[in-house]
Amino acid sequence: MPGNRGVSYDGPGKVEVRETDYPEFELKDGPGVNPANVGRKLPHAAILKTVATNICGSDQHMVRGRTTAPQGLILGHEITGEVVDVGPDVEFVKIGDLVSVPFNIACGRCRNCKEGKTGVCENVNPDRPGSAYGYVDMGGWVGGQADYVLVPYADWNLLKFPDKDRAMEKILDLAMLADIFPTGFHGCVSAGVKPGSTVYIAGAGPVGLAAATSAFLLGAAVVIVADLNKERLDQAHTFGCETINVALGEPKDQIEHILGEPVVDCAVDAVGFEARGHGHESEEEHPATVLNTLMDVTRAGGALGIPGLYVTGDPGAHEEAAKRGSLSIRIGLGWAKSHSFVTGQCPVMRYNRQLMMAILNDRVQIAKNVNATAIPLDDAPRGYHEFDEGAARKYVLDPHGMLARSS
Amino acid sequence: MPGNRGVSYDGPGKVEVRETDYPEFELKDGPGVNPANVGRKLPHAAILKTVATNICGSDQHMVRGRTTAPQGLILGHEITGEVVDVGPDVEFVKIGDLVSVPFNIACGRCRNCKEGKTGVCENVNPDRPGSAYGYVDMGGWVGGQADYVLVPYADWNLLKFPDKDRAMEKILDLAMLADIFPTGFHGCVSAGVKPGSTVYIAGAGPVGLAAATSAFLLGAAVVIVADLNKERLDQAHTFGCETINVALGEPKDQIEHILGEPVVDCAVDAVGFEARGHGHESEEEHPATVLNTLMDVTRAGGALGIPGLYVTGDPGAHEEAAKRGSLSIRIGLGWAKSHSFVTGQCPVMRYNRQLMMAILNDRVQIAKNVNATAIPLDDAPRGYHEFDEGAARKYVLDPHGMLARSS
Amino acid sequence: MPGNRGVSYDGPGKVEVRETDYPEFELKDGPGVNPANVGRKLPHAAILKTVATNICGSDQHMVRGRTTAPQGLILGHEITGEVVDVGPDVEFVKIGDLVSVPFNIACGRCRNCKEGKTGVCENVNPDRPGSAYGYVDMGGWVGGQADYVLVPYADWNLLKFPDKDRAMEKILDLAMLADIFPTGFHGCVSAGVKPGSTVYIAGAGPVGLAAATSAFLLGAAVVIVADLNKERLDQAHTFGCETINVALGEPKDQIEHILGEPVVDCAVDAVGFEARGHGHESEEEHPATVLNTLMDVTRAGGALGIPGLYVTGDPGAHEEAAKRGSLSIRIGLGWAKSHSFVTGQCPVMRYNRQLMMAILNDRVQIAKNVNATAIPLDDAPRGYHEFDEGAARKYVLDPHGMLARSS
Amino acid sequence: MPGNRGVSYDGPGKVEVRETDYPEFELKDGPGVNPANVGRKLPHAAILKTVATNICGSDQHMVRGRTTAPQGLILGHEITGEVVDVGPDVEFVKIGDLVSVPFNIACGRCRNCKEGKTGVCENVNPDRPGSAYGYVDMGGWVGGQADYVLVPYADWNLLKFPDKDRAMEKILDLAMLADIFPTGFHGCVSAGVKPGSTVYIAGAGPVGLAAATSAFLLGAAVVIVADLNKERLDQAHTFGCETINVALGEPKDQIEHILGEPVVDCAVDAVGFEARGHGHESEEEHPATVLNTLMDVTRAGGALGIPGLYVTGDPGAHEEAAKRGSLSIRIGLGWAKSHSFVTGQCPVMRYNRQLMMAILNDRVQIAKNVNATAIPLDDAPRGYHEFDEGAARKYVLDPHGMLARSS
Repeated sequence: MPGNRGVSYDGPGKVEVRETDYPEFELKDGPGVNPANVGRKLPHAAILKTVATNICGSDQHMVRGRTTAPQGLILGHEITGEVVDVGPDVEFVKIGDLVSVPFNIACGRCRNCKEGKTGVCENVNPDRPGSAYGYVDMGGWVGGQADYVLVPYADWNLLKFPDKDRAMEKILDLAMLADIFPTGFHGCVSAGVKPGSTVYIAGAGPVGLAAATSAFLLGAAVVIVADLNKERLDQAHTFGCETINVALGEPKDQIEHILGEPVVDCAVDAVGFEARGHGHESEEEHPATVLNTLMDVTRAGGALGIPGLYVTGDPGAHEEAAKRGSLSIRIGLGWAKSHSFVTGQCPVMRYNRQLMMAILNDRVQIAKNVNATAIPLDDAPRGYHEFDEGAARKYVLDPHGMLARSS
Repeated sequence: MPGNRGVSYDGPGKVEVRETDYPEFELKDGPGVNPANVGRKLPHAAILKTVATNICGSDQHMVRGRTTAPQGLILGHEITGEVVDVGPDVEFVKIGDLVSVPFNIACGRCRNCKEGKTGVCENVNPDRPGSAYGYVDMGGWVGGQADYVLVPYADWNLLKFPDKDRAMEKILDLAMLADIFPTGFHGCVSAGVKPGSTVYIAGAGPVGLAAATSAFLLGAAVVIVADLNKERLDQAHTFGCETINVALGEPKDQIEHILGEPVVDCAVDAVGFEARGHGHESEEEHPATVLNTLMDVTRAGGALGIPGLYVTGDPGAHEEAAKRGSLSIRIGLGWAKSHSFVTGQCPVMRYNRQLMMAILNDRVQIAKNVNATAIPLDDAPRGYHEFDEGAARKYVLDPHGMLARSS
Repeated sequence: MPGNRGVSYDGPGKVEVRETDYPEFELKDGPGVNPANVGRKLPHAAILKTVATNICGSDQHMVRGRTTAPQGLILGHEITGEVVDVGPDVEFVKIGDLVSVPFNIACGRCRNCKEGKTGVCENVNPDRPGSAYGYVDMGGWVGGQADYVLVPYADWNLLKFPDKDRAMEKILDLAMLADIFPTGFHGCVSAGVKPGSTVYIAGAGPVGLAAATSAFLLGAAVVIVADLNKERLDQAHTFGCETINVALGEPKDQIEHILGEPVVDCAVDAVGFEARGHGHESEEEHPATVLNTLMDVTRAGGALGIPGLYVTGDPGAHEEAAKRGSLSIRIGLGWAKSHSFVTGQCPVMRYNRQLMMAILNDRVQIAKNVNATAIPLDDAPRGYHEFDEGAARKYVLDPHGMLARSS
Repeated sequence: MPGNRGVSYDGPGKVEVRETDYPEFELKDGPGVNPANVGRKLPHAAILKTVATNICGSDQHMVRGRTTAPQGLILGHEITGEVVDVGPDVEFVKIGDLVSVPFNIACGRCRNCKEGKTGVCENVNPDRPGSAYGYVDMGGWVGGQADYVLVPYADWNLLKFPDKDRAMEKILDLAMLADIFPTGFHGCVSAGVKPGSTVYIAGAGPVGLAAATSAFLLGAAVVIVADLNKERLDQAHTFGCETINVALGEPKDQIEHILGEPVVDCAVDAVGFEARGHGHESEEEHPATVLNTLMDVTRAGGALGIPGLYVTGDPGAHEEAAKRGSLSIRIGLGWAKSHSFVTGQCPVMRYNRQLMMAILNDRVQIAKNVNATAIPLDDAPRGYHEFDEGAARKYVLDPHGMLARSS
């Protein structure tokens, strides 16, 4: 049994790469493991040698110390790997398979899984429906920013790449299937993006750029990306997006300038609750800014996809209501415009196979668009830091040097 | 040309039946008519002799003085009538036809109408998409609580009843097609109600009862209606609904008692922004109470239909934010449960034909379920008053005594 | 280990109840077992004590000798039972659970299962996607008209009834969840049945009656059932269907008499390829009669749900083309009317939970409507015979006398 | 009033450009005009100066003499033009507007139009739902291969290009919005094409190439186009399609060679009833060949979009059944694979606005992909002839030389 290393949350602002246990087919106690999950048998699991494991904006939320994440939590829910072992119940996944892991852990047996709602699986998180690897309050499944990681319900959860060699040629693109590409895509689908749509995407971080990429893949006519970060907007511009710097104020006029009308068909919130204000309020957090702006700029009859995270409680919030998860939302505006709103975790499995096909057949350049950047696992602390500083990059950890070799 | 009488809003708490102009094929200036609509030619209109015209909860909002509705506004957007005249452009509607009028006025020519989104028609209200008869800030179309009323774009808007005699036998049921039956139905459809669903409906007013009726028509397994008004809950009970009195507190425990689990599949907000709190807060307005409760009681992966009205500004609100249309919403809770939310006016035309068929073939008793009660036009002030007091009735004005004769 | 008995196909026109092996967690060789499935390990299976197991019209096809079904095949794919044993990989299903078994066997791990298309699972039938218990060319899974039966992938396939006692009170209704109720429902959903629809259902056998029941549950305004068998039409009439005897000729005039127009909104084919002609051709098989009639009577823009079975080859057919699975279809008529057609096995899992809820909450009387009739297992030969003679009954075998005791 | 010229069908194999009447706001008697339509008042119509008017494969059907089209019929249903006059009921369309005309004539007032099913409008063709300009048995609306053409229900039917100058720069692309681009797109949407899909398109004529273009716009991973005509396959290859020459035999092996599996996710029939056989039968007409092949090559659970025309009667067919519109179809194969089939005219209005947006924003090159070729109106006979010979071109007639000037 080889050793294992993982990226550990070590308190606000701190992550470290530490020695950690090699996975077993049982969920052991550890930081953040729900007591009801301790000792859970996992004969349906596979153990992966991690080929690529990405740093996600939602990891930052924990690392910034705005959650109750315990120290020692091994982070990481964006995982691509090679199967090195399987439990006795695994029938279709084979050792040697190169696979993508949906970030949402799902059992494949409950009502929600049967309905394709794998983001709210009822059997993996004792606290509430829905789970993810390496995340606070998600049941305690060990994160995948590590050399090796365990994936439960492997036959259900894993997406096998049909040809390993061909997959390794596009491995940085395929690494985005674990979360941000489907998540951005889900935002667009939820917002009703179709060929010819005009689309406003709030946020030019990796999810926003993935949403923009998805909008183009879905045939959108015009994709407008908004952010406060000029470098990230420049990145959006590289693949054909129109861009709006909301530090300069509300985006309505700029949308009119671009489209000839001040509204779009579809809008995607790729920011979530850590939003800052627009214009002169852009230094302050205004957690409902994005939602309220989206209602303002979306046409009557349009829809809003909201993959950006909103939380049930935010101890670090400025306002009391926000600490309890309540935001001041202009719901009357949305109502007057007959808007619909789709929230929640993307059910990755609903989309990852088709997006894999688009990647493998050269129909989309997601890695290039999000500026995927492979770094060694040991450089994870640097990656977290630079990403938090606003680098226009998607950091992909490379525990075994396989990304370095493949490029 | 016969005379005309209409129900006029005469200031907070006051409505009167007054002499009013007989309709012409042009929109004349008058109380609440948008200047851009004054003089608009209406060769596509029909003039109806009003057979039934209902008092709606959303009329009450104006009558309570919580809007900028001008005095002298003729009220009424729930209209059923007989065609007595048609403009020169009307091709398919014929004099003598007995018809239902969708409350949302729509042109049948704009992008939204072509997409079936008649609740946000772009060509009838100069202020913003969407319009209705006899309503503040909706362009100034004269209300239908009157002897005669004009319906623009008659070929598009009117739903003809196939057989007049058969229709008159069910005229109180058919009168509900103008608004509340489709509105309640839309709430259920938006919430994903299907055969076997468990459904929570907030509000036992006419829209809530119509939603409950719709839920059964859609095959729901269990329909739970919640309100603070015991008489209205009793009405819901008459046709098989389970009921919850939210004056007694949050409904979760009562739901668990009924269903064996504390959550429903689908939820409908048939209350809107004039909600009161639950439990000991039930004497006070808490405009976000219903939305927040719905998120609490709807299962992860479920959906919320929100036909209840939320407004862009509410001068009468208690809180500053609510005056500007912002409510404190637990969006994080909804997000954690992957809820979707569908808001806005019901596009009546999408549903009225099929619901008419259900009525005419004895598949649904909407008039009985909402306790439709015909009263003379002259009794409109009484109807408004009793309805505002919480009577468990749907008042239907009967300008020409045709309802009295048919029953 | 108890003994086991099963209903065996013993050649054209013959079925017998025979001693048979008690199930093991491995698929053994036997009549009709695909060599590629022999020896397949089934640690994911459950063994059920059969509480109810129905005779299906599609079983008759084998018994009439029109397939290559081998002698000794144990029949039966409509199974309701109590779990008496589970394999080591079963996690959520428990011994003692009372469950319904979807007739389509599905792995819960392949692309089609993940997309909810369990009728075309890719991993259970070596010959082609899709499988069923006790059926020719479906991989060789042993049928459930037996005392005990094995269900693979039990956590995925089984639907647990939430309360055993309450379930036993409705066990004849719940027994219809294994096949005909979802199958009829799927036909209606595929045909676009909605509240207010007019629906034509070809066939008043159990699937046709289940489709009619489903149409009402979906809110249909008028449900018209057509058949050549007067007794079955009478059965349809008992629960509110209009009926048409197609022995009297094409149904268009009769539809016009019922509806006032010669077309319906939606049509369901609950007959399939063993159709006879209409009118004076009603003594002869005309395998495309139903499809062609449905196109004739369905309005332009309507849809056809086709749960009735069509086969890839029919050695017993009269025409050469039909022997090879080709039928003479008036596709041009359908095209002119922009019809859509949905074919194939019903993916039972998509519907069984919601239909169970409708049953348990007294929203539907499927057993009464299809005239479900429990008989001892030993009377299976009589049940097959009477059903083949056209009895207006759905025969439910009762191996352990549990149905007799519960009623 | 200017003069007018139009392309007249003058008997099998013959078309001529003739003097013809300038349109009036009334439908006059003439070749092919349904008596019930003669004298129909058209105050809702607009008269267009034809900017572009394309020759369509379905015109060829008439010109080849396989219909009952009368001599003197003015052809043409693919129309782009400038409004030069409007009837008194036209409110939103203005003189000077540059517009696309959906080939299906629709009233915008009937049930089907309200449901978006404009391909089966109930009010424009006295014979049956659905109509088109210049087409046999479609009510008698005069064709648009002419200098000037009348469009009824102009406010409903016409799609205005937002900016005339910008539109004239892309006028050959926009000319495809009248029929083939939406038609090909509808085929793909009906077949379930999504990002990542593998798609088989039967036919490399203009509709097939438009379907292939649409598949890419919808994000398809691999688009395979099949035909017997090498030049047309080469054209498909120019924009990234894989191609299969079905003269070499059934396409299954070639599909496997391309995809690694012998099946696609989605299939589109862009050929219709005038199909020839595959392989050694490719010299003969086999009207069901395409449908049967599509079932063979589409995966279980997949869908077939069938925009290719099938007719209710074909006097020129070889087989008796085909003369009456019946084809020998392997429905059992489709059923075994749970296929769905969507047939009929494309409802152009459902798609043309969004496809216009895609064109105007440079997201798609439909004119280039179908090899759109402008020729003078007087050269129409040559265009018909060359197209019938199999030229890999889409001929666009240019009555006023405006296309020549714009390019």
